[in-house]
Amino acid sequence: MNVAMIEAAAGRLAGHARLTPLLSAPLLDARFGKRVLVKAECLQVTGSFKFRGAWSAVSALAAGARGVLAYSSGNHGQGVALAAARHGLAAVVVMPSDAPEVKIANTRAYGAEVVLYDRATTDRDALGAELCAQRGLVLIKPFDDAQVISGQGTVGLEIAAQARTLSIEAGDVLVCCGGGGLSAGIALALEAQAPGLRVRTVEPAGFDDMARSLAAGKRLRNAQTSGSVCDAILTPAPGEMTFPILQRLAGPGVVVTDDQALEAMALAFTHLRIVLEPGGAVALAAALFADSADPVICVASGGNADPALFRAALARFG
Amino acid sequence: MNVAMIEAAAGRLAGHARLTPLLSAPLLDARFGKRVLVKAECLQVTGSFKFRGAWSAVSALAAGARGVLAYSSGNHGQGVALAAARHGLAAVVVMPSDAPEVKIANTRAYGAEVVLYDRATTDRDALGAELCAQRGLVLIKPFDDAQVISGQGTVGLEIAAQARTLSIEAGDVLVCCGGGGLSAGIALALEAQAPGLRVRTVEPAGFDDMARSLAAGKRLRNAQTSGSVCDAILTPAPGEMTFPILQRLAGPGVVVTDDQALEAMALAFTHLRIVLEPGGAVALAAALFADSADPVICVASGGNADPALFRAALARFG
Repeated sequence: MNVAMIEAAAGRLAGHARLTPLLSAPLLDARFGKRVLVKAECLQVTGSFKFRGAWSAVSALAAGARGVLAYSSGNHGQGVALAAARHGLAAVVVMPSDAPEVKIANTRAYGAEVVLYDRATTDRDALGAELCAQRGLVLIKPFDDAQVISGQGTVGLEIAAQARTLSIEAGDVLVCCGGGGLSAGIALALEAQAPGLRVRTVEPAGFDDMARSLAAGKRLRNAQTSGSVCDAILTPAPGEMTFPILQRLAGPGVVVTDDQALEAMALAFTHLRIVLEPGGAVALAAALFADSADPVICVASGGNADPALFRAALARFG
Repeated sequence: MNVAMIEAAAGRLAGHARLTPLLSAPLLDARFGKRVLVKAECLQVTGSFKFRGAWSAVSALAAGARGVLAYSSGNHGQGVALAAARHGLAAVVVMPSDAPEVKIANTRAYGAEVVLYDRATTDRDALGAELCAQRGLVLIKPFDDAQVISGQGTVGLEIAAQARTLSIEAGDVLVCCGGGGLSAGIALALEAQAPGLRVRTVEPAGFDDMARSLAAGKRLRNAQTSGSVCDAILTPAPGEMTFPILQRLAGPGVVVTDDQALEAMALAFTHLRIVLEPGGAVALAAALFADSADPVICVASGGNADPALFRAALARFG
């Protein structure tokens, strides 16, 4: 993995993914006493950065590929579905049968075939491997894939250029972190193009496997697999590919509470007029509520928010 | 008024106002059977296009100006307040004493002195004229001002360039319309730079003074002054300067209901992940619910939404 792969991915994404704005708000800065810059990946195609990695991986497939397969109940599946459809390839997304109806419907609407499985009785990986073998599909992993990391890294290339325009040469770049694909990709891009900017991963309390792993110097797992509103970033452990990159390049991980993520959603509503989902708001929460440098850049990684949850966040914090 | 003034305003705005993205969403297009492109001015500094006109007017003041004054309970006042503060000029914003606390607080937070008046007993224009005379302030009108219209017209320059990138040469550009400053500015810019694109004003039912005036060939007033959720665009009649421009360049006006505006807010939440206020959502409502060309461009003009109203829109349509 190196920045050349990220630059190559940027070339393949040009005209397909969106160059997202780096937003800020005078009244937000005044309230929190620091300059906060928000990379609005909620405005990305399909509503999250995941489209970048999906497009990067699908566009890098060898000629003659028949189709792709992804496991996902969320943003990765939607990104893969649309990227495959636009390449004229079949996409199968394997989803648990208790996934929200709207996510199943959206994944189908992007053109994918959805295969449902019972969490209690089915081995998801075995099912996926069988489908790949039967139909000649290529598995697109959510983060432990060099082309996926390269696609996510294009966020870092954009941040480096946008920071340069603002004459920001040093500081933290806070990144919402599940398996670490986005964080690792951005870290590699910044290493090459803005070495004064340092990635720090942000996770919800109770799911801070990356922060603990970085502190321990080895990959540690979370004790639990559910129990946070930040569903998009609840992965069991750091990725095999992503962890060594972050171990080398990232600062200490930051942890925020679910309530801080919900309050960040409400503040983004009021001051930035963007919609964030909880897992996409943890980096903004860290920028506002945790100790961070001034100025601080944070990545608002996704905006596919459940309307009822969003209403609840506004009722409490809006 | 001509495009040279708009280009000059664009030069003054560079590095201060934001070049806002032209967003779209595959699932929104699929659901409504047409390609819909949304100019996201809710992402503009201070949350609406009004900052452009305010900056244009303030930056065009003669050297030695002491300060500015605006009448506004909303977006224009916030735009003028911030533009004046960043020019080191005093700003007085004259607001009704029953304006929402949060708008008064925000206008002050942007650095303006807020002068409150009683709607029942005070002549606002006389009060403003007295303040201007006493303190040597320059009145910045919300739409009937050549520099304000020029600033709003920079939205049109950006749309022309963005449409060209997408190879869109002809079609309607739907614009949320109060007094007509944004619509007139965009129309002048498109006339020069994208003559195949035609502005059409969009207003809420009961406040369709511009649509009726365009049809009648003369300026007509609304029968009522309140009674729509689209508070940002409830002006009594078309502007003296804006109407002749739109009479020459705009197509027939479009009218939508309050409910359509609220549903457009919910659809923008789900598909575009942007926050719109009702008056900033009427053009998107027209793109989705009224007869319009395919592709259609619409301007989402503002996003300073009341949280309770936004929750209600999501509860009904989310």
